Amino acid sequence: MSRIYMDHNATTPVDPAVLRAMWPLYEESWGNPSSIHWAGREPAGKIDDARAAVASLIGAKPRDLFFTSGGTEADNTALMGVLLARKDAGRHIVTSAIEHKAILDMATYLEDLHGAEVTRLSVDGQGRHDLDELRAALRDDTVLVSVMLANNELGNLNDIAAIAAIAHERGALVHCDAVNALGKVPIDVAALGVDLLSISAHKICGPKGCGALWVKRKTPFEPYIRGGGQERGRRCGTYNAAGIVGFGKAAELAAERLASGWEDEVAALRDRLEAGIRERLDGVRVNGDPEHRLPNTTNLSFLHVDGEALVLNLDLRGIAISTGSACTSGSLDPSHVLVGLGLTDEWLAAAIRFSLGTSNDAAQIDQVVDAVVEEVEKLRALTA
Amino acid sequence: MSRIYMDHNATTPVDPAVLRAMWPLYEESWGNPSSIHWAGREPAGKIDDARAAVASLIGAKPRDLFFTSGGTEADNTALMGVLLARKDAGRHIVTSAIEHKAILDMATYLEDLHGAEVTRLSVDGQGRHDLDELRAALRDDTVLVSVMLANNELGNLNDIAAIAAIAHERGALVHCDAVNALGKVPIDVAALGVDLLSISAHKICGPKGCGALWVKRKTPFEPYIRGGGQERGRRCGTYNAAGIVGFGKAAELAAERLASGWEDEVAALRDRLEAGIRERLDGVRVNGDPEHRLPNTTNLSFLHVDGEALVLNLDLRGIAISTGSACTSGSLDPSHVLVGLGLTDEWLAAAIRFSLGTSNDAAQIDQVVDAVVEEVEKLRALTA
Repeated sequence: MSRIYMDHNATTPVDPAVLRAMWPLYEESWGNPSSIHWAGREPAGKIDDARAAVASLIGAKPRDLFFTSGGTEADNTALMGVLLARKDAGRHIVTSAIEHKAILDMATYLEDLHGAEVTRLSVDGQGRHDLDELRAALRDDTVLVSVMLANNELGNLNDIAAIAAIAHERGALVHCDAVNALGKVPIDVAALGVDLLSISAHKICGPKGCGALWVKRKTPFEPYIRGGGQERGRRCGTYNAAGIVGFGKAAELAAERLASGWEDEVAALRDRLEAGIRERLDGVRVNGDPEHRLPNTTNLSFLHVDGEALVLNLDLRGIAISTGSACTSGSLDPSHVLVGLGLTDEWLAAAIRFSLGTSNDAAQIDQVVDAVVEEVEKLRALTA
Repeated sequence: MSRIYMDHNATTPVDPAVLRAMWPLYEESWGNPSSIHWAGREPAGKIDDARAAVASLIGAKPRDLFFTSGGTEADNTALMGVLLARKDAGRHIVTSAIEHKAILDMATYLEDLHGAEVTRLSVDGQGRHDLDELRAALRDDTVLVSVMLANNELGNLNDIAAIAAIAHERGALVHCDAVNALGKVPIDVAALGVDLLSISAHKICGPKGCGALWVKRKTPFEPYIRGGGQERGRRCGTYNAAGIVGFGKAAELAAERLASGWEDEVAALRDRLEAGIRERLDGVRVNGDPEHRLPNTTNLSFLHVDGEALVLNLDLRGIAISTGSACTSGSLDPSHVLVGLGLTDEWLAAAIRFSLGTSNDAAQIDQVVDAVVEEVEKLRALTA
């Protein structure tokens, strides 16, 4: 059975070139980058190169970016880091109801155990934010606004520049979780106007276990992982040199893809998938904002179909898709993102995320369209 | 120039068998272990196997151990996790003045920003703790005692079982940083009598970027990294599957080494190094407790020699040793561990850590003895 992977927002295949870049860090240059002797110097130099490559992908200065164990740690660090550093200014945080759990669960933790107050912005039926609701939510003691660049389940792209401008006007700092946007659309921290930005390697064909947090120079910020002084004290613990170097190579490759028009290619594949399914099936709804979204993502609800059953049936045919975030795949609760859109139960239970990537081509799209149509029809026949 | 690595307490070469175990997690089974489709199932199964292997190395049940990004995160998580979970019982923490910075800097952070009170136990001239000082430090509101199993700079082994018994009698929980003891001496969490224990892969020929925290069942504990629910909510973020699998293989290999008498072999090499140097040089002091220490570590001070200069001169000859922890290698401050011993300045500036490992043999020991003797004599001649 041939396998088709269409769940690239969950994770991506590691690019062979990334692996080739990482390998020497395990086999030869395995020293501790903090060591001053020969064993430390070579990995330390390669970390510098990787930092430059990753920073370049988001238009940042290398010195303002430090590596973390992933997007979740970067998100957690941003929220706690600003809350503590600005405790004299207030303790109110504004975020959105459809953020990733790395933001939402951390926000709840900060409320429950660290004295924060959190406002969660609602979204409309397409997952869009109302800037007036943001304006109304901001208070004199709002220290941080955290809104993601691209929603991982819907693909929705938020107008971060507008959000940042409004937040800054009221004296709040702005963090952006760009984990699922990275490599799929161009990112420039200056154009976004944010103060902190989280990214992760494994969403762009890099390794799992490595992410980064960019913190604009002079932003008040308290480190989260503390210890031996690595990353100039902003993130301690022995450098994951192989992971960092893999992230660097993945960033280079992502920059090349974006420069060569990959965005349009993958959008064409996504549109072919969406059109192919909708031409042949009734009762299909596109969830999210069709105008402002990632080029690789479509979230579809199939009326009278249980999404979980569709995922399992397609898995039996070798097709990997998901009902939403991989992080919460084990859960039986409906996606908080789709709940946030106000979907009725019949649409809610029937939602599927297709997220395309470098491993997909037009032939695969056509196979997936055929398989989805067949399986949806089978499932509908069972319940009819 | 042949290279000799004698800084295994900083990090270790990655074992080729570990690399072979990791490789498929990058090349084939790169799925997100949380995904329910085919791409997630294979890495998820391999994580289960790795968890069993790592747990076995410390005599623990797999379900009580979760993976982190390394020893530093595990240490940080333990301290904050217990402080928050036991906030109704108190906010006092007892630790030692010669712990790793991942404990000491976190303790300071908890004092400065999270309302903790911390007592740091002193040590005698050999780095040993006085159990009466511990007894006197414990208070009704002491929620946690954190003492390392083996000191990374001296090799000193602490009597954790005795410390745990005393702490438990007063109602305090006990955390043990076993990062530098793992794989060098047998570890059994039940025999130690602790409640939480931190370990790391890269100290036992595994990859950097992966560690673990063992938390005894029913121990009050709040997670530190929050998000999508991985590790049953105890440590969120996409699993670093390759790192975890590498840790598992490294744990298997370490268990085999310990079972085959490697401890005695490496102790014999260490003793040969120590005796060889001391026979040929006057003014050499062994720092730490020569009776209770790791089999692979010796910390020597050379009178009238600047330790940093000795490290650099030996590096030029291809020999990798260090003045202390790699984490703080960049720093010009003397080691807080050696300061803790109360060494006078002349001994303090002259300290060198030799930490042996699987990459060393007797021929290397003899080369290092020759090189150290020559370089110490040269440096002494310069200052004479």
